Amino acid sequence: MQGMVETVDRLFVHARELVTLTDGPARGARRGAAMQDLGVIADGAIAVRGGRVVAVGTTDSIARDYRASIEHDLSGTVVLPGFVDGHTHPVFAATREDEFHMRCAGADYMAIAAAGGGILSSVRAVRAATEDELLARTMRIFDGFLAAGTTTIEGKSGYGLSVEDEVKSLRALTRARDSHPLDVVRTFLGAHEVPLEYRDRREAYVDLVIDEMLPAVVGLCEACDVFAEPGVFDLEQSRRILRAAKAAGLRLRIHADEIRPMGGAELAVELGADSADHLPQVSDAGIRALAGSDTTAVLLPGTSFYLGKPKHAPARALIDAGAAVALATDYNPGSCHTQSMPLIVTLACVLLHMGPAECIVASTINPAASLGLDADIGTLHPGKQADFVALDLPSHRGLGYVFGGNPTVATVKRGEPVWPKPR
Amino acid sequence: MQGMVETVDRLFVHARELVTLTDGPARGARRGAAMQDLGVIADGAIAVRGGRVVAVGTTDSIARDYRASIEHDLSGTVVLPGFVDGHTHPVFAATREDEFHMRCAGADYMAIAAAGGGILSSVRAVRAATEDELLARTMRIFDGFLAAGTTTIEGKSGYGLSVEDEVKSLRALTRARDSHPLDVVRTFLGAHEVPLEYRDRREAYVDLVIDEMLPAVVGLCEACDVFAEPGVFDLEQSRRILRAAKAAGLRLRIHADEIRPMGGAELAVELGADSADHLPQVSDAGIRALAGSDTTAVLLPGTSFYLGKPKHAPARALIDAGAAVALATDYNPGSCHTQSMPLIVTLACVLLHMGPAECIVASTINPAASLGLDADIGTLHPGKQADFVALDLPSHRGLGYVFGGNPTVATVKRGEPVWPKPR
Repeated sequence: MQGMVETVDRLFVHARELVTLTDGPARGARRGAAMQDLGVIADGAIAVRGGRVVAVGTTDSIARDYRASIEHDLSGTVVLPGFVDGHTHPVFAATREDEFHMRCAGADYMAIAAAGGGILSSVRAVRAATEDELLARTMRIFDGFLAAGTTTIEGKSGYGLSVEDEVKSLRALTRARDSHPLDVVRTFLGAHEVPLEYRDRREAYVDLVIDEMLPAVVGLCEACDVFAEPGVFDLEQSRRILRAAKAAGLRLRIHADEIRPMGGAELAVELGADSADHLPQVSDAGIRALAGSDTTAVLLPGTSFYLGKPKHAPARALIDAGAAVALATDYNPGSCHTQSMPLIVTLACVLLHMGPAECIVASTINPAASLGLDADIGTLHPGKQADFVALDLPSHRGLGYVFGGNPTVATVKRGEPVWPKPR
Repeated sequence: MQGMVETVDRLFVHARELVTLTDGPARGARRGAAMQDLGVIADGAIAVRGGRVVAVGTTDSIARDYRASIEHDLSGTVVLPGFVDGHTHPVFAATREDEFHMRCAGADYMAIAAAGGGILSSVRAVRAATEDELLARTMRIFDGFLAAGTTTIEGKSGYGLSVEDEVKSLRALTRARDSHPLDVVRTFLGAHEVPLEYRDRREAYVDLVIDEMLPAVVGLCEACDVFAEPGVFDLEQSRRILRAAKAAGLRLRIHADEIRPMGGAELAVELGADSADHLPQVSDAGIRALAGSDTTAVLLPGTSFYLGKPKHAPARALIDAGAAVALATDYNPGSCHTQSMPLIVTLACVLLHMGPAECIVASTINPAASLGLDADIGTLHPGKQADFVALDLPSHRGLGYVFGGNPTVATVKRGEPVWPKPR
């Protein structure tokens, strides 16, 4: 007996492996052993309608039950949910390659700062740029994320460090988001560094962030972040800013325990932040706090690698303790100039000793959950956005193993192929 | 007064920077301070005829002096001589991602071997494959090199380890070379490992390599390589094989001082080898020997990174001593699965502390010289092959700084755009 055949917009068929991630729950961050459940379908297919997943299954079963006027052949590729990059700094005005080479040659932070490098060089450039210039560059950067197979990012301001320039940055980010297929969660990071003009009155800068910046940006972002680090924003300053942001209705993220330990992870948990990011220096207490919380540990191995640091985030301890772990690029012009989640996965395998399934979960559903988007993205469950990436890999275990180039064959956003750009 | 206008086949114009490398001599490996001379032309152009460079200069000057019916706009790109990858193992039959993940999880060499991994797993797969299967895979791999901006490689056999299977591998490599734009220098590596069937009679395997393999492969390759390493081929075995290869008219290369120091660099110099490759464990005497010789130190930072080794090749000591230094991918299915010279440059900057100009020289003219091809490739000097790559970089100093994706916009081989594949 022949069943009903349903008409959809598009069929994507013959993926060598379709990694749906729906063996486990389709929502929420996955922890520990649950990070092994990938829901892999051999010779997989996806039916899409209205930009959403209607069904996933073997090509045989999908071809039997669905029909579409547009059919895409994914032969030879491994298909994953689009990468979700939960920590990026995409709004800047100039690259910093000279500083990279100085650092590789052994120059320390002070020498780089003396030569005009560091975050404050990006601040000078952003302040000198117009909103339209920032917009144009941000649009090109968004193209780069799609090319790398990333379909959703979290993007921060933080190179303005004045009311006017933080607003300008978030407006450029918003306009880019509004005219680009990439989905973007916007984060205000006025507390990224203390600008030169406030170096001898740091509390006054904290006041500026709280009293003037926050009210000005509150309609331009979903979240607030603070660079909590000894010598930048201490624990109490970070707490003040984040509490004010929470009171203003923003979600919270924290740059925590990156260079020197300071209890940043514990602060993130105390405040109910969505994420504690970086964490090479997280304490055992911080690991326990994260494991007992809904705060996601967002690990950025590209940064510790690129900065030549000997110590990386303790991914195994975090996973084994039961913390929710995500991976992100930290894409920025200074400390990690990559947009490639596949490269970050290689670094996570080699430097953080994460396994292939853990890396896939940590670059899809877990960051989606940390951004509050797990109802819509992060798995290929029916009803979710049809965001996915087709990769040239021998199997899903080839992610990380294949390294250094761009394995992305095609990126699909809301059911539409968006990279390579349709001609 | 108007000069003569010469007609050529193609003009490539408006490169943001054209890195010709012709401030220094157009031939020969560059050492020490001479590695800084890049011959950078802002708004650069190249005139090409018969697959060769006719002239390089500013777009203004080239447009004044040359005319062509085909003109390519290189706006927004940095153009370098095509990368020359002087150490690859492109002829294999199966990827080894499971072994990669075992190693990242902490498994040692013995555990991986016990699980069927390591070089011998590639030997099993190559022996089971037909020559046509090897050819088809090798052709796809060659496409990957062009996509990464590499226009010439050295490619080794070494996963056959029998007369029949080494010949099969080199025949597949030769057929791939003959039907692909990539230029390939072929190297016989029968002494890559001792196959299982010779484990209790290693000298008999050395005899097999010398007495049977060498005569069988001598028309199928330009060079011979040996994996000189304690427990694999010792110094005397390596010397015997390489001397026999030299007597048979082959050029020499050596896997030297990778895992444990053994005087491999000194052996390379003693025998007049073109290259000593790997070198994390090279001794001070080995560095001095290389510096006083024409043997190029071919450094493979991708491998020491990918294997999670704490010690990398002493690039600074080698350069400072005056050795000729080149970079290569070591592309292979086990210890370094990347085809990307741009990624290798990032690793050379971060892990080997090489500077941007040194990295460019070490990935173009120096490997060309080590392969005996410096009369034809490695710089954009008039008369040389028009092999070049257009990269999406802010400046030539952006090579290394931009990492993790594929910055290649276009690869040109003998004056013809070969990647992206013309439609």
